Amino acid sequence: MTVQPSFAQLTAEAYPKVKRNSSFKVIDSADKDYFRSILSKDEIIESQSPEELASFNQDWMKKYRGQSNLVLFPNSTEKVSKIMKYCNDNKLAVVPQGGNTDLVGASVPVFDEIILSLKNMNKVRDFDPVSGTFKCDAGVVMRDAHQFLSDHDHIFPLDLPSRNNCHVGGVVSTNAGGLNLLRYGSLHGNVLGLEVVLPNGEIISSINALRKDNTGYDLKQLFIGAEGTIGVITGVSILAAAKPKALNAIFCGIDSFDTVQDLFVKAKGELSEILSAFEFMDRGSIECTVEYLKGMPFPLQNHHNFYVLIETSGSNKIHDDEKLHAFLSSALDSKLLSEGVMAKDKADYERLWTWRKSVPPACNSYGGMYKYDMSLQLKDLYSVSEAVTKRLNEAGLIGDAPKPIVKSVGYGHVGDGNIHLNIAVREFTKEIEGLLEPFVYEYIASKKGSISAEHGVGFHKKGHLHYSRSDIEIRFMKDVKNHYDPNGILNPYKYI
Amino acid sequence: MTVQPSFAQLTAEAYPKVKRNSSFKVIDSADKDYFRSILSKDEIIESQSPEELASFNQDWMKKYRGQSNLVLFPNSTEKVSKIMKYCNDNKLAVVPQGGNTDLVGASVPVFDEIILSLKNMNKVRDFDPVSGTFKCDAGVVMRDAHQFLSDHDHIFPLDLPSRNNCHVGGVVSTNAGGLNLLRYGSLHGNVLGLEVVLPNGEIISSINALRKDNTGYDLKQLFIGAEGTIGVITGVSILAAAKPKALNAIFCGIDSFDTVQDLFVKAKGELSEILSAFEFMDRGSIECTVEYLKGMPFPLQNHHNFYVLIETSGSNKIHDDEKLHAFLSSALDSKLLSEGVMAKDKADYERLWTWRKSVPPACNSYGGMYKYDMSLQLKDLYSVSEAVTKRLNEAGLIGDAPKPIVKSVGYGHVGDGNIHLNIAVREFTKEIEGLLEPFVYEYIASKKGSISAEHGVGFHKKGHLHYSRSDIEIRFMKDVKNHYDPNGILNPYKYI
Repeated sequence: MTVQPSFAQLTAEAYPKVKRNSSFKVIDSADKDYFRSILSKDEIIESQSPEELASFNQDWMKKYRGQSNLVLFPNSTEKVSKIMKYCNDNKLAVVPQGGNTDLVGASVPVFDEIILSLKNMNKVRDFDPVSGTFKCDAGVVMRDAHQFLSDHDHIFPLDLPSRNNCHVGGVVSTNAGGLNLLRYGSLHGNVLGLEVVLPNGEIISSINALRKDNTGYDLKQLFIGAEGTIGVITGVSILAAAKPKALNAIFCGIDSFDTVQDLFVKAKGELSEILSAFEFMDRGSIECTVEYLKGMPFPLQNHHNFYVLIETSGSNKIHDDEKLHAFLSSALDSKLLSEGVMAKDKADYERLWTWRKSVPPACNSYGGMYKYDMSLQLKDLYSVSEAVTKRLNEAGLIGDAPKPIVKSVGYGHVGDGNIHLNIAVREFTKEIEGLLEPFVYEYIASKKGSISAEHGVGFHKKGHLHYSRSDIEIRFMKDVKNHYDPNGILNPYKYI
Repeated sequence: MTVQPSFAQLTAEAYPKVKRNSSFKVIDSADKDYFRSILSKDEIIESQSPEELASFNQDWMKKYRGQSNLVLFPNSTEKVSKIMKYCNDNKLAVVPQGGNTDLVGASVPVFDEIILSLKNMNKVRDFDPVSGTFKCDAGVVMRDAHQFLSDHDHIFPLDLPSRNNCHVGGVVSTNAGGLNLLRYGSLHGNVLGLEVVLPNGEIISSINALRKDNTGYDLKQLFIGAEGTIGVITGVSILAAAKPKALNAIFCGIDSFDTVQDLFVKAKGELSEILSAFEFMDRGSIECTVEYLKGMPFPLQNHHNFYVLIETSGSNKIHDDEKLHAFLSSALDSKLLSEGVMAKDKADYERLWTWRKSVPPACNSYGGMYKYDMSLQLKDLYSVSEAVTKRLNEAGLIGDAPKPIVKSVGYGHVGDGNIHLNIAVREFTKEIEGLLEPFVYEYIASKKGSISAEHGVGFHKKGHLHYSRSDIEIRFMKDVKNHYDPNGILNPYKYI
């Protein structure tokens, strides 16, 4: 069985227990006529061919595939509003879609939901270099937001490996975390305002809100991380930070995860305001990456149980390098590190990051991977990886071919208490799945962790929220969904 | 007429149009028996004497005074829960109270509401120095949280002039901003989890949540800034930052508000990661303060139209001072500043801050003050102060006695687009009030600003939200209130 064919199995076939909600109308020619009446030709694709709509129906992990025949690309908030009002009045189900880079099956249809793509809403609306307030349409690609702000000596306060595809609106809808949350904080703090079209077509906007605004409940917060289940984000106002003038990094090898934590405390104290990332990888992550980057010289002399990449960013290269050099020297002197190197120049800095950024594609390169994204108290962070690896090893599933698993590895953002668990496999099997779930979720629940640190809920984790949330929280969440979307037409079969 | 008698007029008398909600039960002896059955003697004060309960019935500005005869001080979440369930079942109105330092009449009763003080819930629950997660009861005084964290080489990510009295829970309930928001961001980003008792006594808790958690709608956000209208915050988990090892400040004189903005852009670019406060004061603010601090030597040679205090905090004193010195020199060279001084030592740093921190008591020292707290786009920030001063001047109300107004001044947090307007008066008069309101609110609405940047809504601004929020936002806010508190017993007559 090969993994990752060009088409994923239809979600409806892979999960036969999930049934289409019969209260949703099946789209007919009158509906299509209506959409044609409000949209121009380049704002609509209608097709019966799975190939033609594959990039909209299927997620990028190729794990989920829906069966929509209609994708709408409105280029204005008013058109989004008309579409939603019509769909709500006619009980047509809708899945909002940004760059379609999510990892939990949140942004593709399950059955025949209309796909509402934001990609034609791609304009920067405003930037105020004095306050740093950046306003844009939801469909602006993150890379373009970064470029625009860089040209104005600022940065978008978030970066992700999917930056070339993901949308600003999608990032906000999924409350993405990314590589620099440690420095710039979460979107709940950085998003200043949102323009949202509600399921009934009403537009609720706080896009002109200022940095401080204490006039009532902060309603916009509910849409951050709601994955398009209670409204369609059409515009975002976000606080951009001043662009750092200096960047540097060290890459080091460490014996134990306890020492990784000690090093983090030391970095917070000594690098403090210039510390912008503190990432760890275990031995297995780097073994996969060495194979994947074949030929690229490894920055360290020896191999270690753990590796850490520390990034600094600040306004003065000389000061920053002095701090980082002093930190590295004293960490080596005190034996916290077995080995460590500091980037000599920009190219070297990029090379060090390559060893971190290549872990996911490296793990995926053997055929496919099972992927979990969790947060735990730091003292417990690596334990979930150890527990999972032990379990899979005891079942005799890890090793050379024909064993199905190449490696079970852990890496992630120490600064945020966030571990990614990648099970690199030659093939997906029901046996592996059965060993992983619900074991992983139960383990996280026992440690009071989160079963989704940054990837969200989507289709994959619907029904699993009780591992991280209490009954009363889930009840109140359901109330939120019912209040905003009483017909349940927005992103159905997912989330809550 | 003297201002600030030891007792404020009863709110019920000062605002006769506000009527007691007749659906609320009047407390009787059976109710008191119940509270005595679940609370110990030091958790309850019952009194018919206005003097005895004055500090709970009256706000610290002495503008509002309620008529409660009962203050409860439960020392556990479970007791808060029992109290709320009983009050909800019996339709007894309740006002939650922290340090009672708010500025909008939010934390005192209007009529006979039971006062639910959190001051007996004053324990630190947990601190993890690795992640920086600090958990405490809501009633911990901010000063004590600062002290605890300072002893552990961290800082509470917020500071306020009322730090000796305000509670951590109160600060979260009112989404307070304060002096270092520019550096550490808002509570919506820093609060990791909350424990909240709902009006019906149910406990909803996310206090064990980790830094990253994307498992559903972020319900806790609604309680941040809700001013105790939909639940009583009993516990807070918040991200503490590493304690800066170095602090410094410059104080400077500037000709125009345009130049203040230019200087801010320069500071963001050059001081960047060590910039922790950028405060401005106008000429009038400092004139009042010079009188108030009589004898204290003024740090500058001359007087100016505007003054700016810039604070840096970082991990390396030599580096920080070098950056700050270079910034000051180049700002003087390029004539952005007319004059500027840098603190020579810790005592000097404290003295420079005294000129900023003394503005509010200075304005209040002539008898009293009208106080507004607004946010605006930076380009418009000072214009509201100019417009108000012009209006009051044209009415001939500003000048030496017997004119009622001493000065109308503006100062605040440039970094957050937040201006405080203080009208220092010899007496409060209906004529001044009539000139100020609704003029101030209408002016802010015309510039799309916020009529409450950080002080909140409370009793003072209930009914004024439409100046900053749309009809649909207000409708959704009312839905939130009705959903969580269908009997409306929690902090009635206020907010929405």
